[in-house]
Amino acid sequence: MTQVEQWDIFELSLKGPQNGNPFIDVSFGAKFAYKRRVIDVDGFYDGDGTYIVRFMPDTEGEWTYTTRSSVATLGGQTGAFTCTPASEGNHGPVRVRDTFHFAYEDGTPHFSVGTTCYAWTHQGDALEEQTLATLKQAPFNKIRMCVFPKHYVYNENEPVYHAFERTESGEWDYTRFNPDFFRHLEQRIGDLRDLGIEADLILFHPYDRWGYSMMDAETDDRYLRYIVARLAAYRNVWWSLANEYDFMMQEKRMVKLLDENKRKRLKTEADWDHFFQLIQACDPYQHLRSIHNGTMLYNHTLPWVTHASIQNGSAVADFGRAVLYRDVYRKPIVFDEVCYEGNIPNRFGSLSAEEMVLRFWHGTIDGTYVGHAETYLHPQDILWWAKGGVLHGDSPTRIAFLREILEQGPALNPVDKWNNVRMTGALGEYYLVYFGKEQPVEWQFELPNRRLDAGTQFQAEIIDTWEMTITPVDGVFEVEPRDRYLCVSLGNRTISLPGKPYIALRIQKVA
Amino acid sequence: MTQVEQWDIFELSLKGPQNGNPFIDVSFGAKFAYKRRVIDVDGFYDGDGTYIVRFMPDTEGEWTYTTRSSVATLGGQTGAFTCTPASEGNHGPVRVRDTFHFAYEDGTPHFSVGTTCYAWTHQGDALEEQTLATLKQAPFNKIRMCVFPKHYVYNENEPVYHAFERTESGEWDYTRFNPDFFRHLEQRIGDLRDLGIEADLILFHPYDRWGYSMMDAETDDRYLRYIVARLAAYRNVWWSLANEYDFMMQEKRMVKLLDENKRKRLKTEADWDHFFQLIQACDPYQHLRSIHNGTMLYNHTLPWVTHASIQNGSAVADFGRAVLYRDVYRKPIVFDEVCYEGNIPNRFGSLSAEEMVLRFWHGTIDGTYVGHAETYLHPQDILWWAKGGVLHGDSPTRIAFLREILEQGPALNPVDKWNNVRMTGALGEYYLVYFGKEQPVEWQFELPNRRLDAGTQFQAEIIDTWEMTITPVDGVFEVEPRDRYLCVSLGNRTISLPGKPYIALRIQKVA
Repeated sequence: MTQVEQWDIFELSLKGPQNGNPFIDVSFGAKFAYKRRVIDVDGFYDGDGTYIVRFMPDTEGEWTYTTRSSVATLGGQTGAFTCTPASEGNHGPVRVRDTFHFAYEDGTPHFSVGTTCYAWTHQGDALEEQTLATLKQAPFNKIRMCVFPKHYVYNENEPVYHAFERTESGEWDYTRFNPDFFRHLEQRIGDLRDLGIEADLILFHPYDRWGYSMMDAETDDRYLRYIVARLAAYRNVWWSLANEYDFMMQEKRMVKLLDENKRKRLKTEADWDHFFQLIQACDPYQHLRSIHNGTMLYNHTLPWVTHASIQNGSAVADFGRAVLYRDVYRKPIVFDEVCYEGNIPNRFGSLSAEEMVLRFWHGTIDGTYVGHAETYLHPQDILWWAKGGVLHGDSPTRIAFLREILEQGPALNPVDKWNNVRMTGALGEYYLVYFGKEQPVEWQFELPNRRLDAGTQFQAEIIDTWEMTITPVDGVFEVEPRDRYLCVSLGNRTISLPGKPYIALRIQKVA
Repeated sequence: MTQVEQWDIFELSLKGPQNGNPFIDVSFGAKFAYKRRVIDVDGFYDGDGTYIVRFMPDTEGEWTYTTRSSVATLGGQTGAFTCTPASEGNHGPVRVRDTFHFAYEDGTPHFSVGTTCYAWTHQGDALEEQTLATLKQAPFNKIRMCVFPKHYVYNENEPVYHAFERTESGEWDYTRFNPDFFRHLEQRIGDLRDLGIEADLILFHPYDRWGYSMMDAETDDRYLRYIVARLAAYRNVWWSLANEYDFMMQEKRMVKLLDENKRKRLKTEADWDHFFQLIQACDPYQHLRSIHNGTMLYNHTLPWVTHASIQNGSAVADFGRAVLYRDVYRKPIVFDEVCYEGNIPNRFGSLSAEEMVLRFWHGTIDGTYVGHAETYLHPQDILWWAKGGVLHGDSPTRIAFLREILEQGPALNPVDKWNNVRMTGALGEYYLVYFGKEQPVEWQFELPNRRLDAGTQFQAEIIDTWEMTITPVDGVFEVEPRDRYLCVSLGNRTISLPGKPYIALRIQKVA
């Protein structure tokens, strides 16, 4: 019997009619069953008379299926396969864990450390392979990427593939997808999966000269159904409804493409709600769903949003800001765009590496997650942020260092919310203190007393987040109550600090 | 014909049955009509066979009414009155204006400058009159106050009135309201109205030894309907569903009152949603509605919330925080509780006056509103925050100074959100820069270029927010573009600053 490992892809391919427009005319899918559980999955037309349905089994054992179709010969076909244990490195799709965090479906924590290469899959194989080689060495476990090509400053090149066929007169035929476009995208998502990288797939964006941002409502929906049918079986897919969704609602931002007819195709907030609900209805696996803002935040409290995807560098540029989003959304907070390390004249792309790393640490201290990107000027306009290639900046090494620290510890939450903005951790067990740009020469050992037993012993380490050193502090710190809020250590010890910026302390309970 | 001024109270009082339990048995109300518009208003039983319906007319001219009742003699009574122009100082109820701000119904801006005296109406007439005398001299145009008495540290005294009658065995009879309790509350709300102060009326709170926090669901609803029927006609009422609503959902907070039977009376989030919707349905005038948190924020994006009422001092303790709430809620943000000026050992009540004033200014710069309270130890435990009396602190004078500045200018919104955290204003017209605890000795004249025409002339003033001085800067500043984001002044002028904390700049277009 066919064997498919858990959270990998079972694919069934059947031949069927080519006449008419199979993208529109033919429905096709299958019901997959494991014991009493049945999952109804949409298939898709892949061109050349080929009909495919893909399925990601989540449980080991024997699965059966039965196809369904509006075409008699495609329906009623049955079969079975065995789902085998996940191989090493396959932890399943990422889910929300403990309100503010993520874990793979097998329980392995996922500390989101993302980057952004908006249009990397539209650069041709040579550059795309280079991007993958870079990612293999880089610290990132998530990448933001657009389905559609990008038109913007530094982004003037034509894409290799387009998502639709053309009519005889050269216009887009929005009723006929171009399977090559999607097969290429799938290949790249598979490449990322094999590197252990989540594909935070941006379904719409405003930076467009081809028309993808201005399709009519029927085409938008058909496109979403088609891409979910093709891609949902990839365990590393996250659905990002849009990049800067609000700019797709503003005439002033979209004016280049606007004529009287297209003005009505500006998106509305109700459109985004609808897209979310459509994906929620179609995706058999309920991959993570969010939407990324320009200057106006989407209402991430809505039930179909799994986590907040936020552009706001300011929120992680200083203490005590990012945590406010946790409170209002009660979901994981991912700062996908906090401005970029680089040297372009736009202020969104001129952060120093130090500032980028600082923002990662501020996000961490506030119990949230931060994403990277890079915008260094390049003679061929190959800026990592849009096209990939190689990394030029100094932040990724420090981000790798931070990721190691995260993966050595528990999920981090502010330990004295709204009162101590410099400290995060897990109460009674683990504390991380960050001083940002401050340069203290000593730190009074003080911990909030919540869930902290007198007599508990801690060890401390000084972390230089920029130099990437971890220096143990001599001795142990045994805590005793000080007042109604705090514990100090016996002897009221302080810790000497190097008096430079970007220093942190890691304080862990002695085993 | 009876005359009632606009937004004042027309009251109709009828005699009816006293037998049985009129609070439960008898429905009573009236339809008030102005031309084609009819408003259905609930009345209430006021004891001693008296049935009352109150109405706040919002339009000048002749109004008619017809009563309705389950008792034949109370129904079908008709009459009319004339609504006359509002007198000086009567601006009508406060409404939301321009998403983030407030205005009275006549269009007069309302810059919310609040204070808190939770249980001031339960202190007896002598202290209550003193509180009113203090308020008459104080800068506050809103006061947070509880309907029910308060049980808490420094709050051990018994209230004068209780909201319910007792049964013969001494238990509360939750089916019979005590009209004296409500008449007294109404008197105080009327006193506040006459001082131009909004009553931000807290309908539930957890600090209770009498049972008000643990009434059953039927009683909660009956209480809300009754209080809306009695009070909605007061133009200065705001509905605050709760103080620290989330603490009423937590067993550990309510444990003193909990037995097996009462545990099920802990509130749920669905209860709060329901209370909001009940008030929304009953209040003919749609007074402002919000709810105040302890450590967990209510979802203020929900449609029945008119503005966010937030406890979080940290959000206004530094730059760039409060603005984040504006983005997510898209409603006016009122920081009702930012800790208190005082000297009690609890950290919520030990702010210096400087820190309290700083928080007001930070909230202002972020386009939000801040509330005051005071907790100085007192030999008779008369802390303003709970009981009123007199003010001892040094912040109210500075808050008065800030209120004057607010009322001289436009509604304030961040002018370069997420990029310039120190500046607020109205684009092209008015800018306010605040330096908080920083002590700069000069400021480079730089304004964001949005909606700013080259050649526009500005005048500047240095504001010492603590010393309460406003010092004009010599000359005018004529702006010219500097880069893609900023304008500077001709000659690239700087402004010399005094090099001390709590300094602001006011920059206004020359008329």
